[in-house]
Amino acid sequence: MHPTAVSETAERLDSGIADLAGFRDPDRPGWTREVFSESYRASRDWTMRRMQDAGLEVSVDHAGNIVGRMAGRSSSAPAIVTGSHTDTVDGGGRFDGIVGVLGGIEAARLLRASGATLDRDLLVVDFLGEESNPFGLSCLGSRSAAGELTPGDLDRQDYRGVRLGQAYRDFGLDPDRLTDVPWARRPLHAFVELHIEQGPTLQQRGLPLGVVTAITGIERVIATFTGSADHAGTRAMDDRRDAMVAAAEAVLAVRAEGCGAPTHGVATATRVDSESRSPNVVPSLVRMQSEIRSVDSTWLSGVRGRLSQEIAAKAGEHGVDVEFDWSTDNEIVHAAQSVQDVVASSADALGIPWMPIPSGATHDAVHMASLAPMGMIFIPSKDGKSHCPEEWSETADIALGVDALVQTITTLDGR
Amino acid sequence: MHPTAVSETAERLDSGIADLAGFRDPDRPGWTREVFSESYRASRDWTMRRMQDAGLEVSVDHAGNIVGRMAGRSSSAPAIVTGSHTDTVDGGGRFDGIVGVLGGIEAARLLRASGATLDRDLLVVDFLGEESNPFGLSCLGSRSAAGELTPGDLDRQDYRGVRLGQAYRDFGLDPDRLTDVPWARRPLHAFVELHIEQGPTLQQRGLPLGVVTAITGIERVIATFTGSADHAGTRAMDDRRDAMVAAAEAVLAVRAEGCGAPTHGVATATRVDSESRSPNVVPSLVRMQSEIRSVDSTWLSGVRGRLSQEIAAKAGEHGVDVEFDWSTDNEIVHAAQSVQDVVASSADALGIPWMPIPSGATHDAVHMASLAPMGMIFIPSKDGKSHCPEEWSETADIALGVDALVQTITTLDGR
Repeated sequence: MHPTAVSETAERLDSGIADLAGFRDPDRPGWTREVFSESYRASRDWTMRRMQDAGLEVSVDHAGNIVGRMAGRSSSAPAIVTGSHTDTVDGGGRFDGIVGVLGGIEAARLLRASGATLDRDLLVVDFLGEESNPFGLSCLGSRSAAGELTPGDLDRQDYRGVRLGQAYRDFGLDPDRLTDVPWARRPLHAFVELHIEQGPTLQQRGLPLGVVTAITGIERVIATFTGSADHAGTRAMDDRRDAMVAAAEAVLAVRAEGCGAPTHGVATATRVDSESRSPNVVPSLVRMQSEIRSVDSTWLSGVRGRLSQEIAAKAGEHGVDVEFDWSTDNEIVHAAQSVQDVVASSADALGIPWMPIPSGATHDAVHMASLAPMGMIFIPSKDGKSHCPEEWSETADIALGVDALVQTITTLDGR
Repeated sequence: MHPTAVSETAERLDSGIADLAGFRDPDRPGWTREVFSESYRASRDWTMRRMQDAGLEVSVDHAGNIVGRMAGRSSSAPAIVTGSHTDTVDGGGRFDGIVGVLGGIEAARLLRASGATLDRDLLVVDFLGEESNPFGLSCLGSRSAAGELTPGDLDRQDYRGVRLGQAYRDFGLDPDRLTDVPWARRPLHAFVELHIEQGPTLQQRGLPLGVVTAITGIERVIATFTGSADHAGTRAMDDRRDAMVAAAEAVLAVRAEGCGAPTHGVATATRVDSESRSPNVVPSLVRMQSEIRSVDSTWLSGVRGRLSQEIAAKAGEHGVDVEFDWSTDNEIVHAAQSVQDVVASSADALGIPWMPIPSGATHDAVHMASLAPMGMIFIPSKDGKSHCPEEWSETADIALGVDALVQTITTLDGR
């Protein structure tokens, strides 16, 4: 690859990230561009033009995914798919998802510029609404592509009472045609997603690339503690049933569980709420919300039992009752070994140092894994910051990720 | 005293409590009759009629306190004052405060029925708005009587932005005349308040009466914990600055401080709030609200230093910063030894078993103590419940309290 080309790629990545960041909700902090918003709608026109500029044939499927196609020699051969998303969380940053869409477009442009023609079609996808939203369902586009969006999901309501199906309609998409998203009918060769790490590991190890081994499973729990609402001035300490004390013990139990986890196992109490707002009543009804993540299925499958027992035992010491509402947000999804191997050997061929790394966040790749062998390429996040305005990745690292993606696509094409 | 009179007193207490309970906000739980509300306004007319029925000469002072006067032989002699309040907390009960007002009226009626005339005037007072309110200032009436309500207090706003001064005006009281509340200009002989214990001690000891030794001091603190908002899926456990974990340690530190307190020292974390509502972010900004009470000034005066140090040390272990906003809600107020002695000897004379007891809740008596030697008489609360619909005291116990109050007033009158 010529130094000029590298530099041009970096410049286009830079200007593309800056241009997309311009599409933001002016009333919200950071770079906010939520699914179904006006800023998101406007940004998608920009993204389609960007794909067209790179020579891609652009279409939007019934699920709202923007697909840029670079035709291969055999349009009947299973295609290679890359991409990510361009929506953000409220108060989010400029790189999460965006790097995978712009990087995919740049990879196609570089492949085209090199004069080579792939045997297979290359599809660069900007998946609709990957981030969590007020309907409580993330990965809308990739979920639809995998045929995993149900009619029941479309009945979900946001806090204003608007149903998800209506939000699709208001955005110009027909929710009745979501069952007619043709991805599953078309055999795919592989899916590779370029993404920022969203954690500090690559930066801490001084490595520019991560080959993702698996995407975390997520267990969520809401624990409800019920004690006794007594006067905080008159009820003796040894005669209380204090739900806040039981919840505090639970927060520490969740942390202890995470600290005892295998590598990259994490456990976080994200919220504590007390029903009473009175400054002089012993709290009698407190809820704690927590999530536990790991790519170790043995550990993660045992977490419900271990934590429920520990939390209930501590609550019992304080005379407090506790009820648990557990849910599995994501099952653990492993990257295909074949794709991991191609990404790793591509990095080696380019002299890019890398490490195998699990993903602690979820991605569109989770759903695409049901359609094709899946792999992910991570690049470093400055200080591991993500979902915040400070989110940052160096252009040079993104460009190295694009190089690895180009090499990976090329190698996969020949298999 | 004749059995008939006792029975009549019990019947009047019963029917009075039931009548007052009828004045309640129909939109709120329990027996809600908050200061400045329509139900409160209506109930006060009932209370004034009740005083008139007992032969008291009724007036309302500029602070909104209802005063029922039973004239003594010498109107220039310092008067004896008894009474409490008839407002309730949101979702409150039928006895807190009410027992002291109705009990005071019954005491006056019994004194009058006995044919005795006191040397001194007896004033039975229903103090305006004793309970905490949306303006954040309790004991409005007794505070005014003691000249402790400031112009700045009248500027306090509730959650709708209404100022306390305007609330007085809307209730038919002139806030500009609050400086003209004549209590402080009239020498008082003693103040005695009959009240429910609001705690379980008397019931647990099987005693019908408590002679209050002191009213608790209250220290309040809002601790603000600042950590780092990282992705809960990607940030390793040993690389976090989790404000929720630090707050949980603080909740347990507050409890430990209370458990290490002298008799009747209590410490309660009443509320924990997290700024972030995201289910996948490590909490970075969490506030904990706590209160600590005791009648032991040595212990209470050291609590700020001890707890601040303990909480900051624990937070530091988690890399979390903490700031404290301490305030003294109430200084410890001791009952006058002279009044305690009269109450105790009155109970002994009537054969009523009693114990000395500190008050863990605050009362109008705190403010009246600056105008006259102060004492309080406690009667048992069922299961120690208060500020809730289940609040309950037996009529027989209330009647015994009224007997002790009559004897106390009679004895004080002769001193």
